[in-house]
Amino acid sequence: MKSGLCFLIAAKRCDIAELQQLALTSALVNACGRLVHALQRERGLSNLYLGSQGQRWAEERHAQVQQSLVIQDEVLACFDRLDTEASVHGARLFSRIAYVLQGLDALPALRARVESLAWTPARATAAYIRLVSGLLAVVFEAADSASDPDISRRLVALFNFMQGKEFAGQERATGSALFAAGRADTAGQQQLLHLIDSQERCLQVFADFASEALTTAWRGAQRHEHLAGLERLRRILCTTAAGGPLDAALSQTWFDSCTARIDAMKTVEDLLAAELLALCEQRIEAATADLANFERLKDNVPATAPGQGSAALSFFDDSPDERPLVTPGLGTSGQGYGLQLERSILELVQDQARRLQTVSNELDTVRASLNERKLVERAKGLLMAHRHLSEEEAHKTMRQMAMNQNRRLIEVAEAVLAMADVLPEPRR
Amino acid sequence: MKSGLCFLIAAKRCDIAELQQLALTSALVNACGRLVHALQRERGLSNLYLGSQGQRWAEERHAQVQQSLVIQDEVLACFDRLDTEASVHGARLFSRIAYVLQGLDALPALRARVESLAWTPARATAAYIRLVSGLLAVVFEAADSASDPDISRRLVALFNFMQGKEFAGQERATGSALFAAGRADTAGQQQLLHLIDSQERCLQVFADFASEALTTAWRGAQRHEHLAGLERLRRILCTTAAGGPLDAALSQTWFDSCTARIDAMKTVEDLLAAELLALCEQRIEAATADLANFERLKDNVPATAPGQGSAALSFFDDSPDERPLVTPGLGTSGQGYGLQLERSILELVQDQARRLQTVSNELDTVRASLNERKLVERAKGLLMAHRHLSEEEAHKTMRQMAMNQNRRLIEVAEAVLAMADVLPEPRR
Repeated sequence: MKSGLCFLIAAKRCDIAELQQLALTSALVNACGRLVHALQRERGLSNLYLGSQGQRWAEERHAQVQQSLVIQDEVLACFDRLDTEASVHGARLFSRIAYVLQGLDALPALRARVESLAWTPARATAAYIRLVSGLLAVVFEAADSASDPDISRRLVALFNFMQGKEFAGQERATGSALFAAGRADTAGQQQLLHLIDSQERCLQVFADFASEALTTAWRGAQRHEHLAGLERLRRILCTTAAGGPLDAALSQTWFDSCTARIDAMKTVEDLLAAELLALCEQRIEAATADLANFERLKDNVPATAPGQGSAALSFFDDSPDERPLVTPGLGTSGQGYGLQLERSILELVQDQARRLQTVSNELDTVRASLNERKLVERAKGLLMAHRHLSEEEAHKTMRQMAMNQNRRLIEVAEAVLAMADVLPEPRR
Repeated sequence: MKSGLCFLIAAKRCDIAELQQLALTSALVNACGRLVHALQRERGLSNLYLGSQGQRWAEERHAQVQQSLVIQDEVLACFDRLDTEASVHGARLFSRIAYVLQGLDALPALRARVESLAWTPARATAAYIRLVSGLLAVVFEAADSASDPDISRRLVALFNFMQGKEFAGQERATGSALFAAGRADTAGQQQLLHLIDSQERCLQVFADFASEALTTAWRGAQRHEHLAGLERLRRILCTTAAGGPLDAALSQTWFDSCTARIDAMKTVEDLLAAELLALCEQRIEAATADLANFERLKDNVPATAPGQGSAALSFFDDSPDERPLVTPGLGTSGQGYGLQLERSILELVQDQARRLQTVSNELDTVRASLNERKLVERAKGLLMAHRHLSEEEAHKTMRQMAMNQNRRLIEVAEAVLAMADVLPEPRR
């Protein structure tokens, strides 16, 4: 018959297995982050290349593609190292990876379309965004599945920072297109404002969940002179009256200014990933020590029948002082040593139950911050099903609603979901 | 290099492993339900035995203890069958089981205290409640961890039904004590109202999430004549002025009437468990068939480099009609067969991504219903930490607040949690 201690040991082993998987996932997340960074640069250069009708940026773009290819190989090697025979990593992570692999398969064809100027900048940008969002979904999955609150907190910070960086990348592309066109237009300006707003909200969640060391690092990484330059260009882009002229020569300044910001973000992202990995390793070490203690304890348990002793009875008491004194002769393990042991096992089990409760509470709080994204996704799904829209169209519709009504995307999502009950059941 | 299809296969294998684990957990849940039922009867009879100062009910109680022991052995055998070497079941389930095992270890000592009339009915009842709530926590864990929405829905229905049944059991005990005392008192009456209310809310959640077959079965299981008798006794208990006389002779009628209701609940609980197990098996069968299809597909994939063909490019398109036509010579697998295959893999991956989204949305909705319990637990934990209360004291405090303010327990929990920010940080 397996004892309570035996199940405690099993629980600890599960914890360790999950932590080891998290450490592996963290390495994966870091690799994905580097690929996202490379693809963001590639997207920006592809945009400039397409915008110049292939007259400029060909060399820079080519060099960046080579770099992306190197990093892609590293990511693929990371994927390969995952144990696809075991079920520890979970169906969701594997499905996200399958999706990313399809995107990477399609990347050479996308590059050929850019190379031959067959696609518009907008179409190429949309394609890169889709691939990047697939990579970010891998990170999101990791953040949503970690069951250690501290690790989950850091993953949420990391995910939001990466997402914020992606909004910064899209801001760079949108601003580049506006400057390149030489003329302000309302749609582009609204999109820019939306991207700046989304970016800031992501960075706020990062600040809420990251360690103090990291928020300090991020403050330090932003140079005032860069920030001032960027804000000036943002002001020019956003406040020039629709149809008014924009100085095309500022295109390069804008690109460099945004790039400096995005590169600074990358250094903080790397620090975040390193901190996460260190935390996983620290947790594994602690859990392994706990496990060794439990196993030592197990070796000391005398081979008697499960405790009918008075120590066991304290299961029903709340406070230690309420615990009955030793009643000799009542139990089979009523002698000093066995009693001591029984009590410490009971305390371990009760500690564990309390810990479980605390962990579950903290996790709920951390994960609540992921709900915003989930609500937006859910509202998008609803629009897709009921109005037969593509994902991009649904997203655009909601963003347009947000802009027209001057509301946040999450508020529009809530409004859409509130309507769900009055809509007919979608076809499955 | 592992392909997208390879990760799809791995994801499907994870699904199957989880479903198999769920099927095992369902069997476990059913066994726990039977032990809960036996302990509820044992608690009721122990109460009557203690109330009669050991003059009556000794034989019935003894027979019930023997029956509980038989079922306990079945539950322990179920626990033993769990694979404690593997990590599929998860740390939380194992921790809950370790807790229950400690409780079962203490059960003989509890029974000895009842036998020798050493404990009051109230103290014995509290001890049984603690053990039953440990067993129900195992079921809750299963409901909170299932990642198939239909299975999760049924587990939520089952958990709430079992919890409702436990409230019915506590109602039986409280009413018995009132009739046995021969005198109405406000505290007992308020507790009774609270138990009836909690019970009805659990049964409402059950009705919201159970299949139509099961809600029909539950309606059928409640005989009108029984219900009318029970409601009449409830009215007598709740409306007799405090201090007014209650007919002690009704004690037996009350007990039998409650027992008939609880036994009827047990038959519905068994149907729920059977339905759950059948659903798990059906899902395993479907997933196994999917897996076989995927593997057949994999055998057919030609051993060329990952698709640089135009089929891959459709990753970036939303609607099928937007997909580019075959462009011969552009890809390495541009011939008819490979292209067809590549497209079907892409469709599988995209299907999977969409399914993941839908599943995640549905799961969130189902699990939201578990949040009420989580909020109450969280508020209780807060009170325990800040006011240094035992768990039972914290629960009592909240219940008292609910009664005094005529509010639901969940409302009190929300109020407690809303205060959390103004409270000092508890010591860890």
